[in-house]
Amino acid sequence: MSHEKVAGRQERRRERREQSTALTKLLQPLHTLPVYELVGPDALALIEEKALHILAEMGIAFLDEEAVGILQDHGVTVRDQIAYFDPALVAEYVAKAPGRFTQLARNPDNSVIIGGEHLCFAPVYGPPFVVDRDRGRRDATLHDFENFVKLAYLSPYIHHSGGTVVEPTDLPIATRHLDMLYSHIKYSDKPFMGSVTSAANAADSVALAELLFGAETIRQQPALISLINISSPRRLDDRMLGALKVYARARQALIITPFLLSGAMAPVSIAATLAQLHAEALAGILFAQMVEPGTPVVYGAFQTNIDLQSGAPVFGSSESQMALYVSAQLARRQGLPFRSGGMFTAAKIPDAQAGYESIMVMLPTLLARVNFVLHAAGWLEGGLAAGYEKFVLDCDFLGMMHRFLAPLDLSEEAFALDAIREVAPGGHHLGTGHTMRHFRTAFYRSDLMDYGSAEQWTALGSKDAYRRANERYKHLLHTYEPPPLDPAIDNTLLTYIQMRKGEIMRR
Amino acid sequence: MSHEKVAGRQERRRERREQSTALTKLLQPLHTLPVYELVGPDALALIEEKALHILAEMGIAFLDEEAVGILQDHGVTVRDQIAYFDPALVAEYVAKAPGRFTQLARNPDNSVIIGGEHLCFAPVYGPPFVVDRDRGRRDATLHDFENFVKLAYLSPYIHHSGGTVVEPTDLPIATRHLDMLYSHIKYSDKPFMGSVTSAANAADSVALAELLFGAETIRQQPALISLINISSPRRLDDRMLGALKVYARARQALIITPFLLSGAMAPVSIAATLAQLHAEALAGILFAQMVEPGTPVVYGAFQTNIDLQSGAPVFGSSESQMALYVSAQLARRQGLPFRSGGMFTAAKIPDAQAGYESIMVMLPTLLARVNFVLHAAGWLEGGLAAGYEKFVLDCDFLGMMHRFLAPLDLSEEAFALDAIREVAPGGHHLGTGHTMRHFRTAFYRSDLMDYGSAEQWTALGSKDAYRRANERYKHLLHTYEPPPLDPAIDNTLLTYIQMRKGEIMRR
Repeated sequence: MSHEKVAGRQERRRERREQSTALTKLLQPLHTLPVYELVGPDALALIEEKALHILAEMGIAFLDEEAVGILQDHGVTVRDQIAYFDPALVAEYVAKAPGRFTQLARNPDNSVIIGGEHLCFAPVYGPPFVVDRDRGRRDATLHDFENFVKLAYLSPYIHHSGGTVVEPTDLPIATRHLDMLYSHIKYSDKPFMGSVTSAANAADSVALAELLFGAETIRQQPALISLINISSPRRLDDRMLGALKVYARARQALIITPFLLSGAMAPVSIAATLAQLHAEALAGILFAQMVEPGTPVVYGAFQTNIDLQSGAPVFGSSESQMALYVSAQLARRQGLPFRSGGMFTAAKIPDAQAGYESIMVMLPTLLARVNFVLHAAGWLEGGLAAGYEKFVLDCDFLGMMHRFLAPLDLSEEAFALDAIREVAPGGHHLGTGHTMRHFRTAFYRSDLMDYGSAEQWTALGSKDAYRRANERYKHLLHTYEPPPLDPAIDNTLLTYIQMRKGEIMRR
Repeated sequence: MSHEKVAGRQERRRERREQSTALTKLLQPLHTLPVYELVGPDALALIEEKALHILAEMGIAFLDEEAVGILQDHGVTVRDQIAYFDPALVAEYVAKAPGRFTQLARNPDNSVIIGGEHLCFAPVYGPPFVVDRDRGRRDATLHDFENFVKLAYLSPYIHHSGGTVVEPTDLPIATRHLDMLYSHIKYSDKPFMGSVTSAANAADSVALAELLFGAETIRQQPALISLINISSPRRLDDRMLGALKVYARARQALIITPFLLSGAMAPVSIAATLAQLHAEALAGILFAQMVEPGTPVVYGAFQTNIDLQSGAPVFGSSESQMALYVSAQLARRQGLPFRSGGMFTAAKIPDAQAGYESIMVMLPTLLARVNFVLHAAGWLEGGLAAGYEKFVLDCDFLGMMHRFLAPLDLSEEAFALDAIREVAPGGHHLGTGHTMRHFRTAFYRSDLMDYGSAEQWTALGSKDAYRRANERYKHLLHTYEPPPLDPAIDNTLLTYIQMRKGEIMRR
């Protein structure tokens, strides 16, 4: 390669990096809009009362001996692995969690604030399948994993690299967490999530974060955030408790999330679902504070309802919107960062259903003041599949939403009375001085949505959104170049991973 | 046809009618949810101040001599057809409009309340084209018009038959308003809209309504509601003013709607668009009150922004959401019913873009407390085309939204602590007593969205939402039977229409 070519490429990289950095740094949006409070304080107090009743009299199962010991050491009554919580104890320990925290990224400009007025969008998490328009639905692989990390890296509207963006089913289960962590570090410089598949995998996540950031640094501010699902109803399993303890002791952040489908893991009513959700979330949060007071935790809520004819989960339902609004209010009353929402759909491909359902969840996500939005892009098929085209479509709307969150400009310049005066009745504003001053930045500009005429659309091949998104994601992956990574650190990480893979495979 | 067959068919008709009536009567939903107030009273006062400034110093053009005379008779200064309004006069006349009113339907159970806490969904209005999956995009005909009237009649989630649901381009322009009005009356028993294409066509609309309801009846309560668009910026044209005067004098309801695309008919900023919109809406409303004090009027707001690269209108944008919320607040401050929102999209077919964009507008429509939602179903291509499949997809989500608007049940039964106690940690609620008591009505049930597994979906032909909706609308039209219409009245209407067609064609 010629010197000019290399220099040119470096220049382009630098520019892109600067641009990307600037965008990301600017664009973790703030909740400056009024929050939407679906119910009043009396309703919230009633739900809290029911939740405390569930915690005190029905209890939460902790399927881990050490955890039971920790609970008992802190004065909790445990019988047959079921812990019964005194309301005063609940309040005391939940209060130890911080109201907001910063999660470090290896590019410091990409570190994110979680909680308060800050909003953080992260990609889909967990799908074992991927879908694209060319190849259809198939088992996800490490190659897919890397692709989704790259797509998240390339979007200025995704602030986080996520966790198990897809499940790389072509790799051995026992060691794939190492490959996933490495992909996040190598192909992105945004913050990422830790493994929760076991205590040992959590320890690997912490070890890699220590190598990347320094052990002392990440004790001060977490470099990992990890998703601890409650195995609802009313149960924390050994796998999740194992990971939780490791992360809490390392002071890494946790998202404690009841996973509730009303009609399956909770009753068919929203009120009951909310009471149970609140009880489960508080149980996980207070346990983390018993392990390590001050551990950064996020109050999580994953809830929707099932279709009572088929038992299948429904996404985008009105019932789930209500639960989202109210659970956000419950978390806010505890002064905790809140995780919920996402671009959810049950659709198998990004068709009209996917569009309708995704926004049915995402707009409430904004108005409810969610702080951390997992599944903000790429989700299809109730979370079983990650869609390439869905990912870029979602990102386009996340961009629009960044706009919505900006406060309404009510300056004299924004009122533009000069322009209104200038244009005669029945005239137009296309060429006014005011339009000329502002047309570059006035509105969000989607280049993925089609706004042209039907004739233009037909002439360009009658491409629906699925097809346009197919072209977009391929173009994005084609332009991708990795963020720089210090070769010495890279080597250290790879050495650790090789060592651990050896150990694990020999077991 | 055998006696049994006829009797059976009548029985089915009766049942369906009763069912449809019951649903419709029950389901004009109420805004019991908290309203979303995007800006505070200071911001609203500032926008109002700018609007009054526009009205007083820049003025609104009234392109109709008689209208100018009416304005001058009421103390308005008019120069070169531009009316300049004193703020006190604005307040005085706008205050004469009622806060809510009932629009009569020929089936009294289908009469709708417009204003206050009531919400009314009406179909798309105005498209010259139709789109379906089998035949693509084509000129709309009377047959299409009838089909959309039938689809609106069949949906329990559409409360209104609308107006120009599509433009029947196969009929002569001069007389097609008569055929459209007759279709609404014949194929539906929901309320409908009057023609605004000229004063004479408005007079025909009133005449037919008088024949159907009785002249005295409709002076007491309107049987027509009609869409008066402001030819923005700052202009009411002779056609709209002609229709407005006819309807106001007959005390028929009017929706006064500035039609604003920020960047084209208004400046590129939302604040300016809102100030201009408010000025224009008030001008139309106060003029209607000068013509006939107490005329029922709706404060309308159609606003979005253009794509500043192509000049094409954008739908579902964040900017238009903001304008929707704030214009609703402005209308509420005047104590007037409000019209805005709809299932808007720029997409040419019901693809993912159509889904995302439609909900980006419809959810704010609910939270902003819109009273009358024109274009609640069927809109495609920025309003240039009505989509058959889009119509039934939109209706499905309108059904969901009816659910969202119902208050959250916080009864002891809804908290279901018995069921939560009954289910052990890690168990499920599929068979609890509580689930059994409520599973039939617990959640909204869509039978158009796909919630099954990917395997089921593939086995059933991998049908995307577009294809499923195609089957649905055809099935619906196949099952359609018209509501009964007194043959004597039918004959009277047809006689009037024949007479008027003769008069018009001889001109």
